[in-house]
Amino acid sequence: MILDAIKELNDIKKVDPGDYEKLAQEIRDFLIEKISKSGGHLGSNLGAVELTMALHLFLDLPEDKIVWDVGHQSYTHKLLSGRKEGFDHLRSYGGMSGFPKTKESEADCFNTGHSSTSISAGLGLVAARDIKGTDETIVAVIGDGALTGGMAYEALNNAAKLETNYIIVLNDNNMSISENVGGMSKYLNSIRTSDLYLDIKDDIYYKIKDLPPGGKVVDSVRKVKSSLKQLVVPGMFFEDMGLTYLGPVDGHDINAMVRAFKEARRRKKAIIVHVITQKGRGYEPALRHPARFHGTSPFDVETGLPLKQGKAAYTDIFSTVMCKLGARDERVVAITAAMPDGTGLKRFRNMYPDRFFDVGIAEEHAVTFAAGLAAAGLRPVVAIYSSFLQRAYDQILHDVCLQKLPVIFAVDRAGIVGADGETHQGIFDLSYLSSIPNMTVMAPKNKWELSDMLKWAITADRPVAIRYPRGEAYAGLSEVRAEIQYGKAELLFAEGDICLLALGSMVETAEEVRTRLRERGLKCSVVNARFAKPIDEFAVKWASDNHRLVVTMEENVASGGYGEQVRSYLDTLDNPARLLTIALPDDYVEHGNVDVLKKHLKIDPDSITERILGERPF
Amino acid sequence: MILDAIKELNDIKKVDPGDYEKLAQEIRDFLIEKISKSGGHLGSNLGAVELTMALHLFLDLPEDKIVWDVGHQSYTHKLLSGRKEGFDHLRSYGGMSGFPKTKESEADCFNTGHSSTSISAGLGLVAARDIKGTDETIVAVIGDGALTGGMAYEALNNAAKLETNYIIVLNDNNMSISENVGGMSKYLNSIRTSDLYLDIKDDIYYKIKDLPPGGKVVDSVRKVKSSLKQLVVPGMFFEDMGLTYLGPVDGHDINAMVRAFKEARRRKKAIIVHVITQKGRGYEPALRHPARFHGTSPFDVETGLPLKQGKAAYTDIFSTVMCKLGARDERVVAITAAMPDGTGLKRFRNMYPDRFFDVGIAEEHAVTFAAGLAAAGLRPVVAIYSSFLQRAYDQILHDVCLQKLPVIFAVDRAGIVGADGETHQGIFDLSYLSSIPNMTVMAPKNKWELSDMLKWAITADRPVAIRYPRGEAYAGLSEVRAEIQYGKAELLFAEGDICLLALGSMVETAEEVRTRLRERGLKCSVVNARFAKPIDEFAVKWASDNHRLVVTMEENVASGGYGEQVRSYLDTLDNPARLLTIALPDDYVEHGNVDVLKKHLKIDPDSITERILGERPF
Repeated sequence: MILDAIKELNDIKKVDPGDYEKLAQEIRDFLIEKISKSGGHLGSNLGAVELTMALHLFLDLPEDKIVWDVGHQSYTHKLLSGRKEGFDHLRSYGGMSGFPKTKESEADCFNTGHSSTSISAGLGLVAARDIKGTDETIVAVIGDGALTGGMAYEALNNAAKLETNYIIVLNDNNMSISENVGGMSKYLNSIRTSDLYLDIKDDIYYKIKDLPPGGKVVDSVRKVKSSLKQLVVPGMFFEDMGLTYLGPVDGHDINAMVRAFKEARRRKKAIIVHVITQKGRGYEPALRHPARFHGTSPFDVETGLPLKQGKAAYTDIFSTVMCKLGARDERVVAITAAMPDGTGLKRFRNMYPDRFFDVGIAEEHAVTFAAGLAAAGLRPVVAIYSSFLQRAYDQILHDVCLQKLPVIFAVDRAGIVGADGETHQGIFDLSYLSSIPNMTVMAPKNKWELSDMLKWAITADRPVAIRYPRGEAYAGLSEVRAEIQYGKAELLFAEGDICLLALGSMVETAEEVRTRLRERGLKCSVVNARFAKPIDEFAVKWASDNHRLVVTMEENVASGGYGEQVRSYLDTLDNPARLLTIALPDDYVEHGNVDVLKKHLKIDPDSITERILGERPF
Repeated sequence: MILDAIKELNDIKKVDPGDYEKLAQEIRDFLIEKISKSGGHLGSNLGAVELTMALHLFLDLPEDKIVWDVGHQSYTHKLLSGRKEGFDHLRSYGGMSGFPKTKESEADCFNTGHSSTSISAGLGLVAARDIKGTDETIVAVIGDGALTGGMAYEALNNAAKLETNYIIVLNDNNMSISENVGGMSKYLNSIRTSDLYLDIKDDIYYKIKDLPPGGKVVDSVRKVKSSLKQLVVPGMFFEDMGLTYLGPVDGHDINAMVRAFKEARRRKKAIIVHVITQKGRGYEPALRHPARFHGTSPFDVETGLPLKQGKAAYTDIFSTVMCKLGARDERVVAITAAMPDGTGLKRFRNMYPDRFFDVGIAEEHAVTFAAGLAAAGLRPVVAIYSSFLQRAYDQILHDVCLQKLPVIFAVDRAGIVGADGETHQGIFDLSYLSSIPNMTVMAPKNKWELSDMLKWAITADRPVAIRYPRGEAYAGLSEVRAEIQYGKAELLFAEGDICLLALGSMVETAEEVRTRLRERGLKCSVVNARFAKPIDEFAVKWASDNHRLVVTMEENVASGGYGEQVRSYLDTLDNPARLLTIALPDDYVEHGNVDVLKKHLKIDPDSITERILGERPF
């Protein structure tokens, strides 16, 4: 095994060039085997094997820097920087992250997770280098999907001003998570399909370098430059912006890429090296099902099939209800930011293609576009993961809520999401959404309630956000299904001295806490809060008037969350009950199994029970 | 006066074309006179007079729709839609807004205020039109400055897919608020300076229209199309993206514009009509000082000079301190998003051009770019207005604070900003910044403290946001200047039963409240909170232990603000003092004089005094 010889950063430089292909194959086999057990991002990593090898061969890490856009394609980078053992605990609590982390290795210079940040961050590293007068090489690696995000364009617009070197590798696999969309995608496709692959031979510029200065040499240089200019014609879009374009280069030809990188480094400008790769390369099931193998749960390597079929997730419920709503109400339209599969909107797309919009990785546009649709009388449903919706905070506040437009936000992956870790946890949405005037924020206790809330939201004639967690939808409490009313909570159990006010996923937890408390001889009431904004003051008052301890429970940071709003209202009452707020600490939450993380964060049934028992007067 | 005949929407269509030029002059005179009294946006409005006239002549409002990007250039639109009288109370409390408002007129189809939203919103209107099967014309009007914002690009990328008509007017005056920056600006400039103005004569396409169908006509059409294609060559950048480009057109030639719009409407695509205008046209002082006349206070029409010189604003203090910090510490770099004047960074730019970055209207990029600079060891100061920083919520959370990078945010225009109204009030930053782990949030009581806080922040080695209000810096309490310490409040007065915990601008208000309470025979303590995150628990405990009533005071919405954090901590104490939180209601705040608004919102000294007196046991 050549891979066994890669024990630390730069060991790849000792590998015989004749063995590169074999090493690439070993890396692919390793990744497929490991990810089949741990789950993780497969397709993008299989596509970036040779690209990463070429970058490690070309650069002097860690002095030189690579910023990986999104970062889920950094597995080969982790392997080549001495983190092979980390794959035994990939994405597990306390184990290696699936994303670049500066605390993991000096080879990781900047943490990523969300899309389209790399060109900005890399430009910061470039500007700092120039101010400090050092000479390291800075490379940003961005996918064509991430190029649909506006901030990448903002960064390109600024990179165009550079008069020093900055290499932007466009890793183009014609995919974001699902198929790519938009004008830029079409443009890149026109380059890709032109069959004009670039391969700069070393001798072209070595010849120039070796020529004596002055005289006829100028002519030779001009000729070479002119022939290089021919090669850049495919990228006129970027050239028009003031960037230099080089490519396209075969992203599975290591030598061709290294040559292109060397050529790129000679320019005192921002230069785009357009590299064509194949997502899922080397693993047939990943080639056939790119969306499913973008991020995958553990699977059987032979068949590519998931090891276990999950039960119905909230996403599935959302998917089904959207199709029903689409049939029932012609005003209903659906918007996703590059995630028709992940958000469950694929079925809606297939049934109502004219009322479905995949805008690309463009959360800001998604929300203001929805505002436009709503202003014209439609009922747009925008399905975006909680942590990605952070991107559109201003658009929600400024374009939707200020005009009180009836846009419905389906906020998937709210709360602890698990293995993707700190960049992907959906633990801020209650705070950032509740601070916005005119917003309504809801969370369902179980799968039927998600359905009821969606149906209600369509008729609510105002902005509504419904947040629900990743994974299996709770199927308990099927017998309790009070009609949804604006700002009204739902009483589940009424007895005893303690009242649990639980929001969304925490209702299931509250039931378990209730069982544990009963085992200790304590009875308690449980209220399904339903609305985080506005809170049900009547229910809170009832809880306070009839119990000695009120406990709020939410999967969100405390600051600005549900508990703080309950607290503010309670304080307006005479002799309010004592309040215990169960929420997440003021910190990021790393990767790991959801149940393990909840225990660690003390929001699991046992910990909450202990905390309640620790409260006086109990 | 021709202008007098414009009493309602579409009256301009009755004006004799020979009088257009005269009407344009009358509009300019009217705007200069009115804005010289009320203050407001002048330059952009003087530039857009003929463009707006052409749009009103071309369109059938209100069935057709115009989305004005940013919206501050909509004054002529307001005039032409029957709102002439509104200019007597422009930007005053209860008077006409300086931005489009759907509640003001049916001619305003979508509210704007922040930059780069129009193409997204317009695309929403287009998609809704196509779903509903109606046939109105939709026009987005966007400036070249707003085109540096990433979400405009996200929208263009999506507009490229359209197979129905959508007209995007690029109102290009080669300026955002200050000079424009970046590759796109350079590109547009190359088109502008090519002297190849487009003027489509009516006869070109009327001839086509009148020809009988079939036969040789196809050839003629092809020829005309081909000659039109020649005209679009300047816009290959947009064409590469899949958009149709038409222009450039003289933005002060009404007939040429109307012809271009008519031509544009014939395409079943998104089409960019590139219109060249002159910011400040027709008023010499505005032409000479475009940045100053972008948004101006009342001025003398003859000289162009402001009617009164304001006292030193917080922005001026920031400006001075930044220059000192730049001299003292080579790691200090400064970043603005298109506002070197507004944020006060112009002097820093002049002194340290290599450490100054104007990234354009690109708040997302600004913040992640700063994260890159900080990751490389520098100390970036990002100066962005509070309401615009909302755009970068995710970047602050995901790129800066997750890595705990030492980026300093100078959050200008925090709190009530006055005449610009609901889109510009800086009343959410305490909430959205405090919800972010690892963030530090500060606010100075007076001008010296802003200086001290900035100096402290540079050395703090962590993310720090300092928020300060628009306008005059408080120069009182000069004798109290305790050293800044992380998380520590400053005690100003200690006496009596009431303790005011005031943040930033509210310290001055607290002093006044204290005086009023003394007049009523009540003594009170005043604490300058300094830190909204983390709150000074020691100070809060001291306040609670030694007073019967604790009052928090902040210029921010209550949800997630300073008061809620104080409340959460107080509730952990035994027998805490009663708490009154003074904050803004859960609502948007309209335009008007700051003092009037504060009275209306009950956060002025009189109202707060009354509220304190109304609290039991006082």
